[in-house]
Amino acid sequence: MTAAHASASSATTRERAYTWADPAVLAAAAQRMDGLDFFAQLGNGDFPPPPINATTGIALVEVSDGRAVFELEPAEWHYNPIGSVHGGILATLADSALGCAVHTKLSAGTAYTSLDLTIKFTRAATLDSGRLTCEGRVVSIGRRTATAEAEITDKTGRVIGHAIATCLIMPIPS
Amino acid sequence: MTAAHASASSATTRERAYTWADPAVLAAAAQRMDGLDFFAQLGNGDFPPPPINATTGIALVEVSDGRAVFELEPAEWHYNPIGSVHGGILATLADSALGCAVHTKLSAGTAYTSLDLTIKFTRAATLDSGRLTCEGRVVSIGRRTATAEAEITDKTGRVIGHAIATCLIMPIPS
Amino acid sequence: MTAAHASASSATTRERAYTWADPAVLAAAAQRMDGLDFFAQLGNGDFPPPPINATTGIALVEVSDGRAVFELEPAEWHYNPIGSVHGGILATLADSALGCAVHTKLSAGTAYTSLDLTIKFTRAATLDSGRLTCEGRVVSIGRRTATAEAEITDKTGRVIGHAIATCLIMPIPS
Amino acid sequence: MTAAHASASSATTRERAYTWADPAVLAAAAQRMDGLDFFAQLGNGDFPPPPINATTGIALVEVSDGRAVFELEPAEWHYNPIGSVHGGILATLADSALGCAVHTKLSAGTAYTSLDLTIKFTRAATLDSGRLTCEGRVVSIGRRTATAEAEITDKTGRVIGHAIATCLIMPIPS
Repeated sequence: MTAAHASASSATTRERAYTWADPAVLAAAAQRMDGLDFFAQLGNGDFPPPPINATTGIALVEVSDGRAVFELEPAEWHYNPIGSVHGGILATLADSALGCAVHTKLSAGTAYTSLDLTIKFTRAATLDSGRLTCEGRVVSIGRRTATAEAEITDKTGRVIGHAIATCLIMPIPS
Repeated sequence: MTAAHASASSATTRERAYTWADPAVLAAAAQRMDGLDFFAQLGNGDFPPPPINATTGIALVEVSDGRAVFELEPAEWHYNPIGSVHGGILATLADSALGCAVHTKLSAGTAYTSLDLTIKFTRAATLDSGRLTCEGRVVSIGRRTATAEAEITDKTGRVIGHAIATCLIMPIPS
Repeated sequence: MTAAHASASSATTRERAYTWADPAVLAAAAQRMDGLDFFAQLGNGDFPPPPINATTGIALVEVSDGRAVFELEPAEWHYNPIGSVHGGILATLADSALGCAVHTKLSAGTAYTSLDLTIKFTRAATLDSGRLTCEGRVVSIGRRTATAEAEITDKTGRVIGHAIATCLIMPIPS
Repeated sequence: MTAAHASASSATTRERAYTWADPAVLAAAAQRMDGLDFFAQLGNGDFPPPPINATTGIALVEVSDGRAVFELEPAEWHYNPIGSVHGGILATLADSALGCAVHTKLSAGTAYTSLDLTIKFTRAATLDSGRLTCEGRVVSIGRRTATAEAEITDKTGRVIGHAIATCLIMPIPS
């Protein structure tokens, strides 16, 4: 799956422009479909990726039952005031992988929401880190809640961060 | 303090362009200065805000000893696949307020890094939430670590989320 | 409210004996009663405190709408392998204060369960800390979940730790 | 490794008595020794287990480089007011496994302290859960901090809870 609405950035001019699609289309599909079917159609380009992907540069690259993998190429426009990729960008990567891993487990007519995120920042991410990979995996799932874990690694496999989260699972009123 | 390098967005065309400044200038200043002096000069426009502010739309609006307040106006380009502001954007707001609150406590020659972030998402943030405010406050500070807490509220004062974090405090080798 | 089934300990012999009451009595009352009524009767001694109180020495000392305060006198039998009160004992104190604060908000026919606990250990607790106080307070409450925060202080008011948690709220099948 | 100072409990009389050893002996050994050597000698019975083990019933059953396994047999005296093992007891199990996993990585002259604990409670633990096993594993280790993860399972392998933590690593002044 690639970012259809890719961003253009220029380090010399430090200017960036990007586009995104109406997120309502995606949210409606997410509610009416089984989780794995939803991701299969998203992968086929049947609906556009969510705006957050275009804004931050994250991209969903792999999804299977109880598992989701996102990638991000660190850029200068991700930087915090102390010289590295902002923790919120790493949290965006982790929250996405955790939520999508849980989403794969949901049947049609069921929705989820993330209740929280705990993320450990174990190594600064910089331009030198190269492409970051974040794999999320469901740890436990019940009728009302699910938990998941995620790990972010750099291009050499070093752990940049890791996270856990709880999602609330809810029937959608029909 | 306002975002000098403001973003332009258009809901109808769903296109956005923005610029940012070299973050190395800011990171160098952060290391050599006392924390409160750093924020005073940042507020005066003596150095540019970090790129993450331009990318996500967050802005530092108030800072005092052990305390920092950030704001964010929710936009469609913050949205996740399930119809609300992505948790990673709220995490960006919280991580910034927590880190800056700790940063105000540091003397010159001392640096910090965030070790983690735990954030609770208590209510979905949407365009209807109006401007979000996130206040961070130091809870404890020692020689080697500090902890802080933050709360995100919407325009009517309802709690959208709250967070805690630990920062590591380090002497800068001279 | 005092611990009716108090523990006896002796530092010289390093031996301790204690008793507790059948927890099923308490769990049944918790389910059928409004939260504040439940704590009022527990305070009156209408039912026995839970076994965990006798085992760890924690005691509920104050409760009001959305708020609960526990105390603990650190003892040698709380110690970990590195010379201070074990983090799990501080977690017991925090988890109790957080859960009871949420419990005060529940009407009859509603139950709760703790989904998680995040606790920061900001200062070692030892025999010198004196009596620890932990105040829990509800931050947000909805139909399905509630969040709360707690702070543990020593006899001089220094912060030993602080915590946040999410509880799941469930109707009890009648 | 067995709990030398085992507890005696009686469900019918609901009375329990136990003994423990002076924790100062253990804390002194922990500081002067390499981590894996420390656990080898602890396993040999060269020093007594920490008081927390006798108080809560947890026991270290296995330790290797970057890994530690604890066990606990749920008992009525672990119960909370709502009819299951108190979350603080599960936190004690997790905090121990996480801390000991990190401790195995330390060389002589280095100490650690736990900065935090985040634990997810995914299934109620009761007497029916049977013996609980908690395996802790180091995820990342640097000069100043280490992170670890732990999973608690019941006798049938179902996940009762899982946790992550950060430890601070410090040179011991000689």
